[in-house]
Amino acid sequence: MNEIKIFSPATVANVSCGFDVLGFCLDAVGDDMIIRKTNKKGIYITKIVGFDLPYETELNVAGVSALAMYETLNVDFGFEIEIYKNIKPGSGIGSSAASAVGSVFGMNELLGKPFNKTQLTEFAIKGEALASKCEHADNLAPAIFGGFTLVKTLAPLEILEIPSPDDLFATIIHPQIEIKTSEARAILPKDIPLNAAITQWANFGSLIHALHTSNYNLIQRSLRDVIIEPYRSQLIPFFGDIKKAMLDAGALGAGISGSGPSIFSLSKGLEVAKNVEGTISNVYSKTAIEFDIHVSKINKEGIKILNKK
Amino acid sequence: MNEIKIFSPATVANVSCGFDVLGFCLDAVGDDMIIRKTNKKGIYITKIVGFDLPYETELNVAGVSALAMYETLNVDFGFEIEIYKNIKPGSGIGSSAASAVGSVFGMNELLGKPFNKTQLTEFAIKGEALASKCEHADNLAPAIFGGFTLVKTLAPLEILEIPSPDDLFATIIHPQIEIKTSEARAILPKDIPLNAAITQWANFGSLIHALHTSNYNLIQRSLRDVIIEPYRSQLIPFFGDIKKAMLDAGALGAGISGSGPSIFSLSKGLEVAKNVEGTISNVYSKTAIEFDIHVSKINKEGIKILNKK
Repeated sequence: MNEIKIFSPATVANVSCGFDVLGFCLDAVGDDMIIRKTNKKGIYITKIVGFDLPYETELNVAGVSALAMYETLNVDFGFEIEIYKNIKPGSGIGSSAASAVGSVFGMNELLGKPFNKTQLTEFAIKGEALASKCEHADNLAPAIFGGFTLVKTLAPLEILEIPSPDDLFATIIHPQIEIKTSEARAILPKDIPLNAAITQWANFGSLIHALHTSNYNLIQRSLRDVIIEPYRSQLIPFFGDIKKAMLDAGALGAGISGSGPSIFSLSKGLEVAKNVEGTISNVYSKTAIEFDIHVSKINKEGIKILNKK
Repeated sequence: MNEIKIFSPATVANVSCGFDVLGFCLDAVGDDMIIRKTNKKGIYITKIVGFDLPYETELNVAGVSALAMYETLNVDFGFEIEIYKNIKPGSGIGSSAASAVGSVFGMNELLGKPFNKTQLTEFAIKGEALASKCEHADNLAPAIFGGFTLVKTLAPLEILEIPSPDDLFATIIHPQIEIKTSEARAILPKDIPLNAAITQWANFGSLIHALHTSNYNLIQRSLRDVIIEPYRSQLIPFFGDIKKAMLDAGALGAGISGSGPSIFSLSKGLEVAKNVEGTISNVYSKTAIEFDIHVSKINKEGIKILNKK
């Protein structure tokens, strides 16, 4: 096997009360990537389709994570990477994570899988850090492991796979505005009230229990963020209207995807998720802001092979 | 049936990262109580053995919770309550909760179980409030439901039963010093760092996952409290020494039980839990402080009937 084509999925990080630790994987949107062994040593980005991203390996997220892995290898060949990008950079659904994960996943397959999923995440963290200026794994982990993941600690990296009910769908709207990561960070308080923190961990513990027990009603009562959302939602136009519309249309819960501007909701069943799509489309159509919407089953498999040769 | 004898168990609240929401139930220590139907209407405390507690119904925790239930009834009889108290008041292992729960559990049985466990907890909250000056259910819930419980919200009262592995044992030391609840509260900060809160909910979510999956190693890595323990442990003499001794003796984790002064640890297996007991007994024997130690399996049943007639 000298060439592999993979699908690297979009992901939702934070997930309301799971700020900074929880994430889940999407099915309906993601990048395609081709990784190819070459005689020439090194890592080369040879094709980028869809968005204007740098070809220089050291400046490209997929290149940097690939290099992190490549530097641990002792091989007399190299890798070419083609990126067919569908996830808009800056949309808040793990665009950089998909790139960072795709290259190392593909290389690992071509090498005969010497690395496990946690090790792949370690390499991908280096690529993700290029895009987000800090090391985090809350989009990487669900992209690699699939389903819901809890990043318990970064050092050492410990990722927990949280089971989830089969009939859970996400509806995500991406308002095409730019939120600078630095601004999304600066708006957060350094200190928070102890009482609010207790509410948050009560909800988060309840959400983990609800996912384990496929308790949709409890998911609904747990998907609440009393800490971050009151601040960051100010950066997203019409956030309150969209969230209300999502809940009115039957979603179990809604919140900011990553650091925004995308807004996610979770619903029981495809029908409700599509109902949410229609309703929020109406809300945003009345504004001057362009947007796109994704409806997706929770992707329990994560990143996957499309074909190889 | 006119009379019932029940065992009302001691409990551990807070459980490190589960501050204010998590609790678990003990087996080896608890109060015995007899509840008896009487022709005379009203609630009467007729016997208290073990500790000096008030006989006036309105001043007795078991009396107040019993009254809360009694006031919702329309009956032409009353109840007598005998309390054989084994859990020392102020020890931090749910002494008042055991009293508050015992009376309403017993009355409910004699009445033919008109109330469910959550309703019993609601009544017991009124008794607990007499002792602790605020309404909380983190000792009541595990006493009534057994096992591990997560009190998600107080209003409305929502209690989640968290499964736990079968081979989990607690070792608890009660140094016989007094910690005023007001002091234990006053020492806590109003605001906490966001980063510490994130660590706490990562650990709490991981603990819930670990309990669901019977993952003892993960219980070990999750039983950490970066928020409350640094403050409240200052009120407990030799806390650091005891905690270290517990962990050195093989405990999975250790922390403050309730608001102290008791210190709990959890271990895999009775042998380790007894090893912990021996080790900490040696540590505290060198001090001038009197203490007692309980070793107990996690009590998955909760409060139970001893006999009835």
